[in-house]
Amino acid sequence: MLLVVCDGVSDRPVKQFDDKTPLQAARKPAMDAIARNGISGIMDVIAPGVVPGSDTAHLALFGYDPYKAYTGRGPIEAAGAGISLVKGDVAFRCNFATSADGRHVTDRRAGRIRSGTAALAKALSGMKIEDVDVIFKEGSEHRAVLVLRGPGLDHRVSEVDPHSEGEILRSEPLSPGAEKTARLLNEFVRMSHEVLADHEVNRDREKQGLPKADIVLPRGAGSVGDLEPMSERYGLRCAGVAGVTLVKGLCRMVGMDVIDVPGATGGLDTDYMAKAKAVLQSLETHDFVFLNVKAPDIAGHDGDFRLKVQVIESIDMMLGLILKDLHEDVVVALTADHSTPISVKDHSADPVPVTISGADSRVDSVRKYDEISAAVGALGRIRGMDLLPIMMGMANRSAKFGA
Amino acid sequence: MLLVVCDGVSDRPVKQFDDKTPLQAARKPAMDAIARNGISGIMDVIAPGVVPGSDTAHLALFGYDPYKAYTGRGPIEAAGAGISLVKGDVAFRCNFATSADGRHVTDRRAGRIRSGTAALAKALSGMKIEDVDVIFKEGSEHRAVLVLRGPGLDHRVSEVDPHSEGEILRSEPLSPGAEKTARLLNEFVRMSHEVLADHEVNRDREKQGLPKADIVLPRGAGSVGDLEPMSERYGLRCAGVAGVTLVKGLCRMVGMDVIDVPGATGGLDTDYMAKAKAVLQSLETHDFVFLNVKAPDIAGHDGDFRLKVQVIESIDMMLGLILKDLHEDVVVALTADHSTPISVKDHSADPVPVTISGADSRVDSVRKYDEISAAVGALGRIRGMDLLPIMMGMANRSAKFGA
Repeated sequence: MLLVVCDGVSDRPVKQFDDKTPLQAARKPAMDAIARNGISGIMDVIAPGVVPGSDTAHLALFGYDPYKAYTGRGPIEAAGAGISLVKGDVAFRCNFATSADGRHVTDRRAGRIRSGTAALAKALSGMKIEDVDVIFKEGSEHRAVLVLRGPGLDHRVSEVDPHSEGEILRSEPLSPGAEKTARLLNEFVRMSHEVLADHEVNRDREKQGLPKADIVLPRGAGSVGDLEPMSERYGLRCAGVAGVTLVKGLCRMVGMDVIDVPGATGGLDTDYMAKAKAVLQSLETHDFVFLNVKAPDIAGHDGDFRLKVQVIESIDMMLGLILKDLHEDVVVALTADHSTPISVKDHSADPVPVTISGADSRVDSVRKYDEISAAVGALGRIRGMDLLPIMMGMANRSAKFGA
Repeated sequence: MLLVVCDGVSDRPVKQFDDKTPLQAARKPAMDAIARNGISGIMDVIAPGVVPGSDTAHLALFGYDPYKAYTGRGPIEAAGAGISLVKGDVAFRCNFATSADGRHVTDRRAGRIRSGTAALAKALSGMKIEDVDVIFKEGSEHRAVLVLRGPGLDHRVSEVDPHSEGEILRSEPLSPGAEKTARLLNEFVRMSHEVLADHEVNRDREKQGLPKADIVLPRGAGSVGDLEPMSERYGLRCAGVAGVTLVKGLCRMVGMDVIDVPGATGGLDTDYMAKAKAVLQSLETHDFVFLNVKAPDIAGHDGDFRLKVQVIESIDMMLGLILKDLHEDVVVALTADHSTPISVKDHSADPVPVTISGADSRVDSVRKYDEISAAVGALGRIRGMDLLPIMMGMANRSAKFGA
């Protein structure tokens, strides 16, 4: 089985472009071939009217109920940064920020700092606060991840991040068991300023007239729910090919083998052909391969119609390469994790088109992969959590329930 | 957002009228314009195969699960019997039963009594016990509904029904506030025997050698729950424009501003133009306006095809006026709360057509608003509870779940 997720590719009609969606405007013979040879439909990735995040959406596409599995963004970012969480950990997404005095934030992104964060992170990671270990790792630009590991932690604490310039807040417990975590979190913020304010990287930045990355603002506290690995849940060897850290983290959280593809950046410059090769190779050793391409979402957030069309056409070339060498027995599903309409420049609740074809799959009259064509296909209107079971059924990998 | 509910407008094909439904036969340019500019589908207002009442249907259309909004089966049976419950009521489903002496049950179904129960119910309904009113209505065969209406009631009382032949139980309070209800319930059972034992219907049954329906056994106590107002649940200022009392009552239950429109009678003579004006005015001060027109349901209950067509054409003129002055950003949904087919003369479980259009809504190939055309539209088959979330999504009023 192969699941291809074009991140945010789903859209709405755009007046200035002949009332077409980017998918309707793009030339995409490979995507249309999947639609022509299989069954199509539309999909509420989480539920009708719910705007999916990339994290909750992918959980649903992997068959996990995001309302049960999801506790904050921290753990997902941590998984994405390659930190393997254990039960009891509390994880936060963080920003390196600029503060005058360790209390007042003047720039929440430290001038979108691009280099030196690895050294700054190293200075923080490995600290101990009371009996709890601090694991800290840099992400892209000003982003980072904090994991607290030790006894008696609870993620239900209030925010320290003011989410704008201003005073740093004091974290308070939001549940009776969370006093210790709130206390450690406040202490971590204080210590981060102590450690970073005079760090070499910041002395250099000061010389260059750049804002110092002299404090860390954690947010999005969460702990790992117990996610049963896909191998156990479905009896499938699963592999994930993705460029962007968040999605990689989700793959790890559900126990996929994450295939590192040099050149798969998660950006607009991602190496599509390297990804195609990685997918074909993974299919030889795995039952289920997941491929995420982030670029359409980026074009959607930018509100750039022409860029989104261009990105779709690049993905289509990659898909063409994959389809050419794909064993005919492989069940292929093509879909999106959410809509990122040009007119909205953010995720929306509009359902996404989905099309599935395989060896002896049913074939409906849909001949194109887009929001309108797919909606009248034989798949009907499904939910994200239904997709993997439907693929397994078509691939004859589902067990009989009953006699 | 504007939600227009044409009460009971949905129908089945009628042989004598060229196998058309009233919606297919009517001239309705405004309704068809909404369909042409948006996406259509069919909707199971509650669930497939469930015949909606107007009360449960509207609860679902406002996004409330009618199975949760009501506690216990009693209120649902009461709604089914056409009794409109208000907050504080306690409702029971009941059996007419046979008892030797008012204490010992010999037949829990009074020989599955088939006739005369309306007269028996009438003898019980309208009684007063202490300061509480008794509303009692027969159902099919031996079934009936009891509603206690008055101050200080609580549905948490134990059963009187032995659920087999034997001694009638004494109801006891299951919570500290339920003493009064338990006392009244025991008293009602005693009085039911007193009133029914010598009733004319039972004297006749005795002559025919049939078991007397000489006592009532209530069970399944329940009350109407506290519904979270729509303003809090969705963050929307909501207004309702309706003529008929039941629907107005439901609007109040969910915290809508109920707009009183002089001349909006809820009947066939309702002042459509006054309603149109009220809708347009309400849209200036509210995020979500709900409009109910009762007349198609009345024509359906009468089994009058021509009248239903005529009513549809009147509603269409009203919609035309509304659409002419409507801001293009308003997301408009047009649907029904249930089907009231000419051939059935009552509500049916047939799904209803639904069409939604708005500023940059997707547009499918459906060009007419009717039961058959809508069913192949891009909305697919949805449920009543999905409608409001879908409208909110299209109006960009939904919050993101996740990152």
